[in-house]
This record gives sequence, C-alpha cells and structure tokens, in this order.
Amino acid sequence: MNEASFFDILKSLKKRVDDYIFDFIPTTHQIPEIVLLYEMMRDYPSRSGKGLRPGLLMIFNRAFGGSDEKALNTAAALELFQNWIVIHDDVEDRSDLRRGLPTLHVKHGVPLAINAGDALAGKMWELVSRNKGILGLGKTMMIFDEFLKMYAETTAGQHIELSWERNRRWDVSEDDYFNMCRRKTAWYTCITPIWIGCIIADAPSSLHDSAVRLGLELGVAFQIQDDVLNLIGDKEKYGKEIGGDILEGKRTLVLIDLLSKCADDEKSFIIDFLAKNREDKDESAVEEILGLMHRYGSINRSIEISQQLAKNAREIFISSFDSSIDQKWKSVILDLIDFIVEREF
Amino acid sequence: MNEASFFDILKSLKKRVDDYIFDFIPTTHQIPEIVLLYEMMRDYPSRSGKGLRPGLLMIFNRAFGGSDEKALNTAAALELFQNWIVIHDDVEDRSDLRRGLPTLHVKHGVPLAINAGDALAGKMWELVSRNKGILGLGKTMMIFDEFLKMYAETTAGQHIELSWERNRRWDVSEDDYFNMCRRKTAWYTCITPIWIGCIIADAPSSLHDSAVRLGLELGVAFQIQDDVLNLIGDKEKYGKEIGGDILEGKRTLVLIDLLSKCADDEKSFIIDFLAKNREDKDESAVEEILGLMHRYGSINRSIEISQQLAKNAREIFISSFDSSIDQKWKSVILDLIDFIVEREF
Repeated sequence: MNEASFFDILKSLKKRVDDYIFDFIPTTHQIPEIVLLYEMMRDYPSRSGKGLRPGLLMIFNRAFGGSDEKALNTAAALELFQNWIVIHDDVEDRSDLRRGLPTLHVKHGVPLAINAGDALAGKMWELVSRNKGILGLGKTMMIFDEFLKMYAETTAGQHIELSWERNRRWDVSEDDYFNMCRRKTAWYTCITPIWIGCIIADAPSSLHDSAVRLGLELGVAFQIQDDVLNLIGDKEKYGKEIGGDILEGKRTLVLIDLLSKCADDEKSFIIDFLAKNREDKDESAVEEILGLMHRYGSINRSIEISQQLAKNAREIFISSFDSSIDQKWKSVILDLIDFIVEREF
Repeated sequence: MNEASFFDILKSLKKRVDDYIFDFIPTTHQIPEIVLLYEMMRDYPSRSGKGLRPGLLMIFNRAFGGSDEKALNTAAALELFQNWIVIHDDVEDRSDLRRGLPTLHVKHGVPLAINAGDALAGKMWELVSRNKGILGLGKTMMIFDEFLKMYAETTAGQHIELSWERNRRWDVSEDDYFNMCRRKTAWYTCITPIWIGCIIADAPSSLHDSAVRLGLELGVAFQIQDDVLNLIGDKEKYGKEIGGDILEGKRTLVLIDLLSKCADDEKSFIIDFLAKNREDKDESAVEEILGLMHRYGSINRSIEISQQLAKNAREIFISSFDSSIDQKWKSVILDLIDFIVEREF
C-alpha cells in the first residue's frame, strides 16, 4: 500500500460510506414534516467526521481478504450508530457544537432532536436487516448480536457517566473512569468495528478475544486523546468547544488525576466550580482549572497513558493478528493505531 | 371461551408478559450505577398498563392456532417498545405523570431518562434477536422487519406531531390528524401486534392487507378514545393529568373540530392560550376550553368517529378473518374491539 497513506484510505472509505448513507436516507416526501425528519437524519452524517469506525471495520475486513461490497452496508450501519448516539449525547450533555456546527437540538429543539435520534437508530437497524441479502441469514444474525452487545455497553457506559453528574459524585477513581469509558467508547469505536470486519471476512473465530483486548486498549486510548483535545486542541480542527468538558463538569482522566494531586483549597475551588449550573460558570475559572491541569502534570500524564495503551494495542495486534493478515494492510493498521493517539481532531 | 371474559384473558396474558420481562431485565450488578439503570428500565414496565399490544398479538396468535410459548418472547418485545417509546415521549411532551406516577425524567432528570429509553430499546431488540432460538432464522427476520416498519412509522408520526408544535401550526386538518395518528399510534398499537400474531401462527399471508386495514381503523379509534379520555376521563383510572393535552397544546381531533366551528374571538382565545409556555397557562382557561369543546359538540363528534372506526374494524374482522380463525376466539376479539373505544383507561 505504498501508493496511499492510511489517511487517504480512511478518507476514501469514509466517502463510500457517506455516499451509501445518502443514497439510503430519502430526501423527498409528500408530507413536508417528513422532509424535515429526513433532513434532520442526514444532518450529522453530512458533517465532516473522521469515519474512524467504518474505516476500522473495512480495513480489518480487507486485511482478512474480505470484499468492500460485502462490508459497506454494515460499515454504514456503524456510522449511523455513531450519529444517532451523539444526537442523544448532545442533548444529555447540553452541548452546543458538534463537528463545528450547532447541535441538532440547538437547531430544532430538544423534542424533535430526541425523536430524530430514535428515527436514525431505526435506519441503522434497517441496514443491519439488509445484510440478509448481502451476507445471508446466519451472518446477519451474528452481526445483529454484535450490534446488540455494542449497544448495551455504550448505553451502560453513558448511564454511568451521567449518573456521576446527576449524583454529583467527585470521588471517581481512575479504575471507575477506565471501566466507564471501556463501555461508553471502546465498544462502538473499536471492538465492534474490528470484530465485525473480521466476521464479514471469515477471519478465524479464535481471534475474538484478541479483537476485544485490542479494541479495549485502543478505544480507551481514543477517549483519553479526546479528553486531552477537549482541553488543548484547536477548536477549528477539533470541532467542539475547547474546555467544554470543564463547563459540562465531565469526569475525565485529566480531572481525576488533578483532583488526586492538588491542594485541598484548589480541590474545593474546582469542585465548587464544576458543580455550578453551566450558565453560572465563568470562562476565567475554566482557564484557571486548565492552568492547574498543566501545572500538576495531569494533561501530560493522560497523554502518556493513552500512548501506553496504544503501545499495548500495537503489541496485541502484532502478536495476535499479524500472522493471519494480508501483509500489505499491516502498516495501514499500525498507522491507524498511531493516528488514534496523535490525532488533532 | 365462556369461562373467562376477554378482560380476564388480557389480564392473564399481561401477567405472563410482565413475568417474562422481569425475568429478562436483570436486577443486580457489581457497579451500583448499573443497578440504577436496570431499575429505570424496569420502572415503566412495572406500572400497571393495559397490556393491549402484547394481548392483541397473543390473541390473534391463538385465534390462528399458534402456541403461547412461541409468541411470548415477541409479545414481551412489543411491550418493551411501548415502554421505551413513552419514556422519550414523556420527555418530548414534558409530561409529569405516566400511569398515575411521576414520569421517569421527573424522577431521574432528562439525561438519564433519555439514555434509559435507549437502553430499554436495546433490550427490545435483544428479545427480537432471541426469536432465532424460538422461531428459527426466517421468521426471526420477518418479525425483525415488522418491528422496523412499526418503528419507522411511529417515529415519523411522532415527528409530525412534534413539528406542528415546534412550528406553531394551528391549521391542521382532520386529514392531517388522521395521517399523523395512523403513523404515531395505529402501527404499534394494532397493526404490528395483529400481524405478528398472524405470522407466528402461520396464518395465510394473503391476510396481510386486511390486517393492516383492521389495525388502521382500530388504532385511530384507540387514539381518539385516548384524546377523549384525556378531556373527560377519571384521573384515577386514566393515570394521566386530565386536560393534559390542552396544557401541552396537542392537536387532537376534538381541538381541530372545535377550531373549525367556534367564533373568531373564541379561536383567538384558544390559540393564544395553547401557544403559551406551559408554566404561563392557568387552569381556569383549560376549564373554559373544555367547556367550548362540550358546547360545540366536539367531544361527542370525536366519540362518534371513534365508534364508527370501531364498527369498520368489526366489519373488516368479520369479512376477512372470521372464516379462518378458531371460532372460540371470535367473541374475544370482538369484545377487544369494543373495549378499545369504550375503555375508561
């Protein structure tokens, strides 16, 4: 694969997945309200994303000799999962920006946004069902069950994080954090994409546990990098508010590390601020907390941990997958692992 | 079936479905937050409902000679559909009461409630997938697709209704209303339950169109009766706020009829009131609007229409289903049709 970097591959796969999705979700209907529903369902998918999840699926599928034609439908379903789940996530977190533009509920109000998220989830399941004509009944059901596992883990992880906020819990440990973000992020971002790519390509089922281990390391690394970008990223590239997690009071690895290291008066200041209603929070305190995160080395420590996790992922990949895959995909996958912890968006 | 009225049958079926659901959704977990998630998923199913949807499914399945054992899992999935969709519906409509108790978001906040709705939808799909061990792959996929159709219609209907509110549309016609509530209510309340009952029992596939017609009439009749109960029901029996639809500004058949008949100054008064924010609405105006609905005969007209729809449903049932079913189920189904428009809850 000398002719194209992993990034070009990801981009071209993303384009194919997007085209597939826009072919699938209609644009016209005799009832004008339904046209708006279609518009809302197409909104987030039309915003430029990384396409990491469908990309992972299709690259692992290729690495085991699978054809794009067989994988594209499921990759599109996975991309819809990401899109409907963040519609609800944005409502739950009261986020204003998504991929650089106003969130769906900011544009259309909370009720329509919740329902459009539900409707888009329905479209995802329609794609899952479509597999019967592409992959046969047996594999369709296997993939259905993988989606169900991913779905259950993601909603459980999201519930844990939202509960911490609801119950104003600030005694969250690093282990609590890792557990939460394995569920909230690792399954749908890495484990399920990798493993479904393997299933479609008929990779040996003995690789299942290694795929889960690989995806866990990589998925948590992805989330930590996301937390870090939220603090020190470039708003243009990142597409969300910088410091948004501090405004939302998110329990990130950086924050947990800071709370475990800072002085008592600093801790009180931080917790008092984070517990405030968002509209009562002032920007200067965000800067101050960010300063503490730098001063106590909490940001650097999180970066180190995510890089260690990516290193673990490389090792799992090389020891468990390398010998079974088409070698021209090896460097692409290793580049992809690096991208996950080095990305700026 | 002389020994048991249709109502006893519905009650005993509901009990079996509930037991199945409570066996299925766990109660314990090592992570305390997850225990709360399970609790939230079990909350609405544990409140006394009519069990109409799983009941319809199981009664049609019995009428065509199907066994309860084969139908129970899908009936439970259908009951979960109703439960997760109303969790989101209650957030979208900002309802305070559901089945006589505070709504889930009133108890736990909007973010956790939206996510618990999503999680419960996942449990529904898990049951749909479980059918492979009960009904085989082919029927499992058929039922999956019926759920997808129901899901798409319901979210489209909900979107239409929410759009009217969002866009402050008061020029909604009776046809608009019928179209909206066919989608929002008839599919998941009647068409899909009836037709899936038929599928499980291997009823002739030629009955499909009649099942849709039957379910459309019956489902719209159900919704109109619901609108009427919301105005003149007994709060204890009905389990929601009486007049809640007026407070929420819902476009019901009763309201549409009233707006088409009342004097211009009354129309302005009504629309001004309905368009207000809920917290600015006073109860005395609700009473006044209710008085107008009585005075212009709008409530009676809606009752007449729902009874006419139920009559149509009886005729479709007798002309299309009667000759193919086990006759001991005939009176049960006819009683069920009557119940839908005569119920007080």
